[in-house]
Amino acid sequence: MFAHVRFVLCHTTHPGNIGASARALKTMGFSRLFLIQPRCFPSDEAYARAAGADDVLDQAVVCQSLTEALQGVTLSVGLTARRRDLSHPMHTLREAASSTSLAEHHREEIALVFGTEMSGLSNAELDHCQRLVHIPTDPTFSSLNLGSAVQLAAYEWRQALLDGQQQLPQSRDHPLATHDEMEGFYHHLARVLTASQFLDPQHPGRLMIRLRRLFSRARVEKAEINILRGVLKSLYPADDGPVPSRKTLPC
Amino acid sequence: MFAHVRFVLCHTTHPGNIGASARALKTMGFSRLFLIQPRCFPSDEAYARAAGADDVLDQAVVCQSLTEALQGVTLSVGLTARRRDLSHPMHTLREAASSTSLAEHHREEIALVFGTEMSGLSNAELDHCQRLVHIPTDPTFSSLNLGSAVQLAAYEWRQALLDGQQQLPQSRDHPLATHDEMEGFYHHLARVLTASQFLDPQHPGRLMIRLRRLFSRARVEKAEINILRGVLKSLYPADDGPVPSRKTLPC
Repeated sequence: MFAHVRFVLCHTTHPGNIGASARALKTMGFSRLFLIQPRCFPSDEAYARAAGADDVLDQAVVCQSLTEALQGVTLSVGLTARRRDLSHPMHTLREAASSTSLAEHHREEIALVFGTEMSGLSNAELDHCQRLVHIPTDPTFSSLNLGSAVQLAAYEWRQALLDGQQQLPQSRDHPLATHDEMEGFYHHLARVLTASQFLDPQHPGRLMIRLRRLFSRARVEKAEINILRGVLKSLYPADDGPVPSRKTLPC
Repeated sequence: MFAHVRFVLCHTTHPGNIGASARALKTMGFSRLFLIQPRCFPSDEAYARAAGADDVLDQAVVCQSLTEALQGVTLSVGLTARRRDLSHPMHTLREAASSTSLAEHHREEIALVFGTEMSGLSNAELDHCQRLVHIPTDPTFSSLNLGSAVQLAAYEWRQALLDGQQQLPQSRDHPLATHDEMEGFYHHLARVLTASQFLDPQHPGRLMIRLRRLFSRARVEKAEINILRGVLKSLYPADDGPVPSRKTLPC
């Protein structure tokens, strides 16, 4: 029903949680489950806990990385219990669901990203997310089960999407850049900054993380990415020298 | 925390669901669990699934009947997937949570009543409830797990009880760049882009306008402006040649 929303589970340890998540998705009208390096999948336990949501498990996409799972995504939302000391704003689940479910987002590809059971999303994973969301819990016991977190998110997104459908959906005149287009830009930017010696690949500090956060907040459009790439190209026209490869760049 | 709200589980079959419910309660600041003739309680499985909410299980009250569990209750709310053709009005979870969380109910004893896994609340049990509530689900797959239903109810009741006071503090740790700081950045950017010949001052088009729009959306912080100025400086360190003055720059 809500085919533009995908749920991404990172490094899930317990197959029961994968099954519970599939069931949670289906009860709320969602169907797209992405699993990044699950410890055990497929499994009987997942199917048992899915309690009939077998189709969600059958169609689940197993990925090797978050980048792979976010291909084509224009808005990635990370669910995290932790407060962040950087400038990424933290929203409650309800705020995030209602703000991303407005008509303008109806044709966007949205990913809700969940971390591993014991420790949640890593900092590196959070850096791939454009919005950070927390589920308000009792401060003395915030240990939500993964399946429960998925259930609550699916519930809130369903409510918000149904509310949003009462407005006329308007297709976006200016499509947003996808996750992979943004990654291409960040790599290009890191190459240029390395060449200009503003970025030291040996001691990158938090420079690229801060730049990522800035551009994440802006929700960059496809046309704008083309401009930014053009800017970078104009600064280093002969960008084919011995600059660090994608792998060694700290971006 | 919310000691006036009790969660009543009728004839629960799976001890795992009792443990999951205890955990769900505790994450949302509730603590009072009533169990009517559970098939198996206490049990190791319940404690395992409670994941630290042992105190909720330790203090759970086992009852023989719903009447016993509702002693002292002034408002009983039954959760049911089924629509009733009786005169009982049916509310959504959110409607019920917000309407019963008004001040007048704060000193009331409220019970949220959940049926058995396979068939939900019986007609006789529903007759003990003053309000009937359903959790909106996809009509083609409404099979919510019992623990998930308890989690959603606890979440909605917590939200309603806190009545918006749970919002994160809005004070801004990271001051925003001022208008003049942004203007200084745009002029610097235009100088660099002119020097790199990406921007033609004679035919500027909408380039700078588009870049302004992008950065405006991001709400750039003071610290970020310093980074961006550093980036520009690294690209054209000797920025004192014959570049156009502020006045003639199309920014």
